[in-house]
Amino acid sequence: MQPAIVLVSGGLDSATVAAIACRDGWDVHALSFDYGQRHLLELEAARRVVASLGIRHHAVLKIDLRGFGASALTAEIEVPKHRSAAAMGQGIPITYVPARNTIFLSFALAYAEVSGARDIFIGVNALDYSGYPDCRPEYIRAFEAMANLATRAAVERGERLQIHAPLMTLTKAGIIARGTELGLDYRLTLSCYDPAPPDLACGACDSCQLRRRGFAEAGVPDPTAYRAVGG
Amino acid sequence: MQPAIVLVSGGLDSATVAAIACRDGWDVHALSFDYGQRHLLELEAARRVVASLGIRHHAVLKIDLRGFGASALTAEIEVPKHRSAAAMGQGIPITYVPARNTIFLSFALAYAEVSGARDIFIGVNALDYSGYPDCRPEYIRAFEAMANLATRAAVERGERLQIHAPLMTLTKAGIIARGTELGLDYRLTLSCYDPAPPDLACGACDSCQLRRRGFAEAGVPDPTAYRAVGG
Repeated sequence: MQPAIVLVSGGLDSATVAAIACRDGWDVHALSFDYGQRHLLELEAARRVVASLGIRHHAVLKIDLRGFGASALTAEIEVPKHRSAAAMGQGIPITYVPARNTIFLSFALAYAEVSGARDIFIGVNALDYSGYPDCRPEYIRAFEAMANLATRAAVERGERLQIHAPLMTLTKAGIIARGTELGLDYRLTLSCYDPAPPDLACGACDSCQLRRRGFAEAGVPDPTAYRAVGG
Repeated sequence: MQPAIVLVSGGLDSATVAAIACRDGWDVHALSFDYGQRHLLELEAARRVVASLGIRHHAVLKIDLRGFGASALTAEIEVPKHRSAAAMGQGIPITYVPARNTIFLSFALAYAEVSGARDIFIGVNALDYSGYPDCRPEYIRAFEAMANLATRAAVERGERLQIHAPLMTLTKAGIIARGTELGLDYRLTLSCYDPAPPDLACGACDSCQLRRRGFAEAGVPDPTAYRAVGG
């Protein structure tokens, strides 16, 4: 089994990616980030997903952006609820981290270097998140090109690093259908931007709305525990 | 004055870059990393350099790679002393961080995003560090290309991000000559991999040897306080 780094946030998308990587026979090294209190429930979801898939390696790295000043902190942003689909495309999401995927992939590259992996999996998706430049295929290819100039493994030993983005062209419903085929228990995942402990989703934030619509469109019963099904 | 991010480690090279950026009229936002106890003296040097140049913004971010396991930690590596020039090219340096420049530049990209900067300065140097793929011009250009696909500022508003590497083709002596012209006080900087508090350099590690040779070749008196001038 070849090692591969899989970015696992605890959300629905990255859980599906982890299930795909496991099914395809990779020795998955999961990588999650702790970037503030709001995400502790998300991290617990990541740990549940990792455990349920039998993944033996899970690195959790703390990222502290407070050095940039309070304005860079996700905790300062209010969670909007019951927004229309049009409004969702506007503004900064609650999980905002500047240069997010670049930072996450950079640490994945470091983890690949220390674990001997040549493959990195990330759950980016060009359709549902079209407003994010760093979710597009051209961005992923550019990161891959940069990474292949960055490491001795690539430059001296010709070990090409590859970034896999298996959800790139899927809709949310398509992702849910795929994970359901693989037996993934989406009850373990957490999408909500404003969850209540232990893992009750609000049902009304942008992320909950996208999730609920995805299950509906996929024709799969939504196992999520919503504390208030509004909107 | 336009904002620019300058990576400042506390060492000789990045101090010179900071002096160049200040002289060229940028509103310098210095960025340093705390990635383990061994580097606390280096961080103090970074703060001295930033203060001496009158830089008003200085973000210090903690990077914790312990999630990867002990083997990824710089603190686990012994500092070799009195090595020959040939031996210096071998093995992992004490300041080793996997995917180092990619991680540092990723956070610089994030800092650029939150501070409205379009320019990032880094003290990489292709001559003295030829063994590091991520110090080469082609790597820097690839990171720049990736960054220009990663942010809304670049993609939607056409604000091209530029990575400046003004030391790229200079020798260590050339760097020292440049900084000396600009009035930089190299006594503030710390190159040593094994310093003793408050800032006494060992004089014998690879980095001290390169520094001492640089001053000698530049014909500039070396202001460094060495606790043992060996080798």
